[in-house]
Amino acid sequence: MKIAVIGCGYWGPNLIRNFVQSHKIQELICCDLDPNRLERMKNLYPSVEVLSDYKKLIEMPDLDGVAIATPVKTHYPIAKEFLAQGKHVFIEKPLTHSHDTALELVKLAEEKEKVLMVGHTFEYTAAVNKIKSIVENGELGKILYISCIRANLGLFQSDINVVWDLAPHDISIILYIFGITPISVNSQGKAHFKDGIEDVATTTLNYDNGVIAFIHSSWLDPNKIRRTTVVGSRRMLVYDDIEPQEKIKIYDKGVEVPPYYDTFAEFQFSYRYGDIHSPRIEDYEPLKKECEHFLACIQKGACPLSDGYSGLRVVSILEAASRSLQLGGRSVAIQGLKSMKRKFKNNGNGFLMASSWK
Amino acid sequence: MKIAVIGCGYWGPNLIRNFVQSHKIQELICCDLDPNRLERMKNLYPSVEVLSDYKKLIEMPDLDGVAIATPVKTHYPIAKEFLAQGKHVFIEKPLTHSHDTALELVKLAEEKEKVLMVGHTFEYTAAVNKIKSIVENGELGKILYISCIRANLGLFQSDINVVWDLAPHDISIILYIFGITPISVNSQGKAHFKDGIEDVATTTLNYDNGVIAFIHSSWLDPNKIRRTTVVGSRRMLVYDDIEPQEKIKIYDKGVEVPPYYDTFAEFQFSYRYGDIHSPRIEDYEPLKKECEHFLACIQKGACPLSDGYSGLRVVSILEAASRSLQLGGRSVAIQGLKSMKRKFKNNGNGFLMASSWK
Amino acid sequence: MKIAVIGCGYWGPNLIRNFVQSHKIQELICCDLDPNRLERMKNLYPSVEVLSDYKKLIEMPDLDGVAIATPVKTHYPIAKEFLAQGKHVFIEKPLTHSHDTALELVKLAEEKEKVLMVGHTFEYTAAVNKIKSIVENGELGKILYISCIRANLGLFQSDINVVWDLAPHDISIILYIFGITPISVNSQGKAHFKDGIEDVATTTLNYDNGVIAFIHSSWLDPNKIRRTTVVGSRRMLVYDDIEPQEKIKIYDKGVEVPPYYDTFAEFQFSYRYGDIHSPRIEDYEPLKKECEHFLACIQKGACPLSDGYSGLRVVSILEAASRSLQLGGRSVAIQGLKSMKRKFKNNGNGFLMASSWK
Amino acid sequence: MKIAVIGCGYWGPNLIRNFVQSHKIQELICCDLDPNRLERMKNLYPSVEVLSDYKKLIEMPDLDGVAIATPVKTHYPIAKEFLAQGKHVFIEKPLTHSHDTALELVKLAEEKEKVLMVGHTFEYTAAVNKIKSIVENGELGKILYISCIRANLGLFQSDINVVWDLAPHDISIILYIFGITPISVNSQGKAHFKDGIEDVATTTLNYDNGVIAFIHSSWLDPNKIRRTTVVGSRRMLVYDDIEPQEKIKIYDKGVEVPPYYDTFAEFQFSYRYGDIHSPRIEDYEPLKKECEHFLACIQKGACPLSDGYSGLRVVSILEAASRSLQLGGRSVAIQGLKSMKRKFKNNGNGFLMASSWK
Repeated sequence: MKIAVIGCGYWGPNLIRNFVQSHKIQELICCDLDPNRLERMKNLYPSVEVLSDYKKLIEMPDLDGVAIATPVKTHYPIAKEFLAQGKHVFIEKPLTHSHDTALELVKLAEEKEKVLMVGHTFEYTAAVNKIKSIVENGELGKILYISCIRANLGLFQSDINVVWDLAPHDISIILYIFGITPISVNSQGKAHFKDGIEDVATTTLNYDNGVIAFIHSSWLDPNKIRRTTVVGSRRMLVYDDIEPQEKIKIYDKGVEVPPYYDTFAEFQFSYRYGDIHSPRIEDYEPLKKECEHFLACIQKGACPLSDGYSGLRVVSILEAASRSLQLGGRSVAIQGLKSMKRKFKNNGNGFLMASSWK
Repeated sequence: MKIAVIGCGYWGPNLIRNFVQSHKIQELICCDLDPNRLERMKNLYPSVEVLSDYKKLIEMPDLDGVAIATPVKTHYPIAKEFLAQGKHVFIEKPLTHSHDTALELVKLAEEKEKVLMVGHTFEYTAAVNKIKSIVENGELGKILYISCIRANLGLFQSDINVVWDLAPHDISIILYIFGITPISVNSQGKAHFKDGIEDVATTTLNYDNGVIAFIHSSWLDPNKIRRTTVVGSRRMLVYDDIEPQEKIKIYDKGVEVPPYYDTFAEFQFSYRYGDIHSPRIEDYEPLKKECEHFLACIQKGACPLSDGYSGLRVVSILEAASRSLQLGGRSVAIQGLKSMKRKFKNNGNGFLMASSWK
Repeated sequence: MKIAVIGCGYWGPNLIRNFVQSHKIQELICCDLDPNRLERMKNLYPSVEVLSDYKKLIEMPDLDGVAIATPVKTHYPIAKEFLAQGKHVFIEKPLTHSHDTALELVKLAEEKEKVLMVGHTFEYTAAVNKIKSIVENGELGKILYISCIRANLGLFQSDINVVWDLAPHDISIILYIFGITPISVNSQGKAHFKDGIEDVATTTLNYDNGVIAFIHSSWLDPNKIRRTTVVGSRRMLVYDDIEPQEKIKIYDKGVEVPPYYDTFAEFQFSYRYGDIHSPRIEDYEPLKKECEHFLACIQKGACPLSDGYSGLRVVSILEAASRSLQLGGRSVAIQGLKSMKRKFKNNGNGFLMASSWK
Repeated sequence: MKIAVIGCGYWGPNLIRNFVQSHKIQELICCDLDPNRLERMKNLYPSVEVLSDYKKLIEMPDLDGVAIATPVKTHYPIAKEFLAQGKHVFIEKPLTHSHDTALELVKLAEEKEKVLMVGHTFEYTAAVNKIKSIVENGELGKILYISCIRANLGLFQSDINVVWDLAPHDISIILYIFGITPISVNSQGKAHFKDGIEDVATTTLNYDNGVIAFIHSSWLDPNKIRRTTVVGSRRMLVYDDIEPQEKIKIYDKGVEVPPYYDTFAEFQFSYRYGDIHSPRIEDYEPLKKECEHFLACIQKGACPLSDGYSGLRVVSILEAASRSLQLGGRSVAIQGLKSMKRKFKNNGNGFLMASSWK
């Protein structure tokens, strides 16, 4: 396969490092406007080709696909050009900067029958997949709420706020684990250093089944925090991504409501305190798995785990969060997603596939 | 002095334990409707008197004051009776269940020239006072935001939600440290076990000087968390009340904005990473200090640190938070507080005193 | 029952607090040469009697027993007087300052058919009993080694070194859990502040079944550490007594030796990394359980869990450690213990009893 | 420069990775008996040459030096051949398997005026250099003791025990920071899996100035521990290499001895509890610095920081520890080192140089 990575700034080099090691790729092209970045890539990986103008890639007939790691607002125009030319496209999260552009890419990819994948890296981690299976097995009981904190000092983005930068990880994890989409979003935050670019915010996702999810995002916290708490009616789970050895802890704790009570005075909960269990999590680089998955989907004509629709859902929620920030934290409905029907089915290779595909 | 404690349930016994050890008290009366609780108190502290009906206390001419640790909604009616009879009154936080009742108690105490104190215990801790002095010395620079988490499993309250139960600690700490009152509040939460009694919530305090404060409160978290992060323009501070040895850490970290920049591309922050410092915090029981402060204020005719007005401010914010919860997280203004002028001045004993007092 | 506590310095008041709350005691006497200490006890617990000269206790015919919490070198002479007069005796750890004196007390108690108990508090904790049952159930496989650290800043003892002060806890835990007695001891340490009083030391217990135990004791560590690691052939366990919530963690980790190998080059271990499990530990005050146990043994004529023989074993090991310290760390055999036959049997009340007792 | 790395097993690839990135090297040769390892190196770094027989290197006239990362017992014969041929030599720690062979290499390097460097990586870390400067500035006061723990599960070595594998790090850190050499060593340990290969041990270094150092080494601990505690008369320091953000903590704690005291009863220490300070530690890869240092020493004819004499000192201590293990923990003197006079002086390039060199 012949693949190009567009954007060699902060994240692109990580994609390049993984693609370089893949046996599925014969030719890898690194593309960036900045010649210094290209030179650094060439030095690190002498086998790669470098190119400053991505437009030249579009005309390459043997190019299979591109991975786009440019500033968020350029995702849509670049991806559109490649999809239109029948190339497979991988885009770093968030997919695009708006619901409409994201939807357009999803539709274009389906029409052209090409892979559109978004870099929701956490969906490829062993920890998140473990949590998904724990939740689906009912070990936690009915899910009551999820609380996420993702914070550290930096790095400020110049074109998107902290919600668009950090919350896509949490939102994609939540959507991936629980499947269902929230009905509305609240977000409250503040821009201290650059007008219009919030550097700290708290976002709430509201579900119609009683679940609520809290997402705290900060570029200004002295400590690096990556923690997700999932509270279920039977057990509680904490996923701490900083923790080297005990990333996931399951607490056999909970509240039990008595079957009935007559008067207010009788009203009594009972609390259950029990053992704590930390399952072993396999150790691998999720980005490697993600990159290989993109290549495998191209080869098999399959729909990726984190496909365009998955990216669209995250962008829709981010857009509603931005609107809530402008409205002083008021609840903003997420439209359109609940009624959309996915058109994919399993293609027999263990992957989902668009039903209209070959 | 002769003092009575009304309510010997969860918190009352802690007050009793401290009052028993005080040299300022000659007679201590424990009052509760439940005879079992009274018996337990009598067994633990044979020197106390016990009483089931608090009404009898009102008629005792030599009673100096009462400490009220009953369910929140009974604070107002009980306190009102004692203030009206010219008794000094201590009330567990929150002061009352509404702004109007709290304001009425504040006015009544001023009119009767009696002490009205609220049990904002954290204002008496060495850690919070250390943070206050660090903030006031400008060590952190301009304050950008505060983020508080107060969570653990239990204890559910039957008459108030988790915001009224846990957030008063955070709100009183924030008000105490920063002095100023927020202009509006947002709150988002969910009641999973008992209708109308939210068990998890996130509350945001908005200030007109750009500061924002986030308060996460939960009765359903597997871990006990008591953490306050104060982010300043020069340094950042984390106060972790669970940590036995390093309760406060000051991080010499921050973001520096360049003096000017012409184009968007030039826009660059610089980050400062530096030493971490953990000041030694004196070790004492804050509740003992709080109880002694109440007795000292009675003796000196002084206004307590956590006076009725302090309690009123917290209740006003809680009431706005409750309203925001009902309105789906929308911003709710806090009214009346900014225009209120405190009428206290220093009485020369190192305490503030109402100006109209002798 | 009528009980006296002799010594109201550092530890005595903890015994007094627990005895005061016991329903089994009608009269409690506090005894100390220092009138200030006695006054403090009288203030805290008005119901106790105070006495400066312990000799007067010996003549009290209705006194059932004494608890001795005086400096270590006075344990033996005081205890001997009371046992000789037929009183039941509890002694704080270590039992005495030498093997010979400890053995004499054990024999005297047996002869007089009185309870002789030593304050090995950790044998009464839920955590240590949990570990004992885990080890006995074979969950850890064959035990390979134990490593203990007990360190913090202070408190210096004036008459005993850090090994005699801190290691009795670790030694009694190890003896209690594993039952068997080591064959020899090494100890290396240093006295930095007071000649002959080592303030830091590492002690090794050698067993004839291949087990080895390391005990690091320090009065000069900046952090409070109370950690015991038990490494078994199947699983490993860490007991961290400072940890509030996860005191015990069981690691499903280990080394597996292949069944056979021909050449050195073929020699390969395989490692097993698995889940981590933290069992819930019941929360109670072990000292309360210990004090009640002493009283119950008196009532039932039973042999305590931590009886005189248990105290003797610890003292024998401490004495060998002292000798090793003098010999520059050389191995010193522990004599006499292996050949001693315990003469106790179950008395039908769930307690062991000396066979010669009624 | 032309450099060869001999041994591409566990550690060699780390050296290769750093040499590949060095601008000082034109030709890099990887040498190993195992063709699979060579193939892996060639795949990772296409620019390197590979070679199976190291003997061929000796004859290369333009080869500047070799880095030896083979099993410990082969260090001496291989290094000797290269030094004899006038090649510069870097050897992974420990330098050799015995004092005599180490001394022979040191003398041979001096005679041939070639660089002999040992891979004591920690001497090149920012943390250890920070501690060295803190100790030398007297911030900790007089050093009383050092306590080191280095433990985790695996990796077993087949030819050396856990002391020879892990303790060289601790010993080289201690020697580097404090300069002086201990006079004797005790070591106690046990081989549970392979006869003669201890997998857990505690080693004590005794100094004639009153300092004592404890080193606990284990291949069988469920947790990865890398902790060094340095206790001084004025302050205490903990270096935790696992901690990502606060590797070094300085505790303003200590014991103060009163100036004089008459009687035993008067004898009282006072304790000082103060702030905790964690200096920021620069973040770089120490191995890169170490590799560059080797190349710089070759270029400048300079003596490395961790030179052959440094390696010899560590080996002498390890040999004494092995002897103590055989003697059941008895103290074993370290001979010869105190009387050896280093013959190096500063060569004006900021490096020490053998005085006999040009």
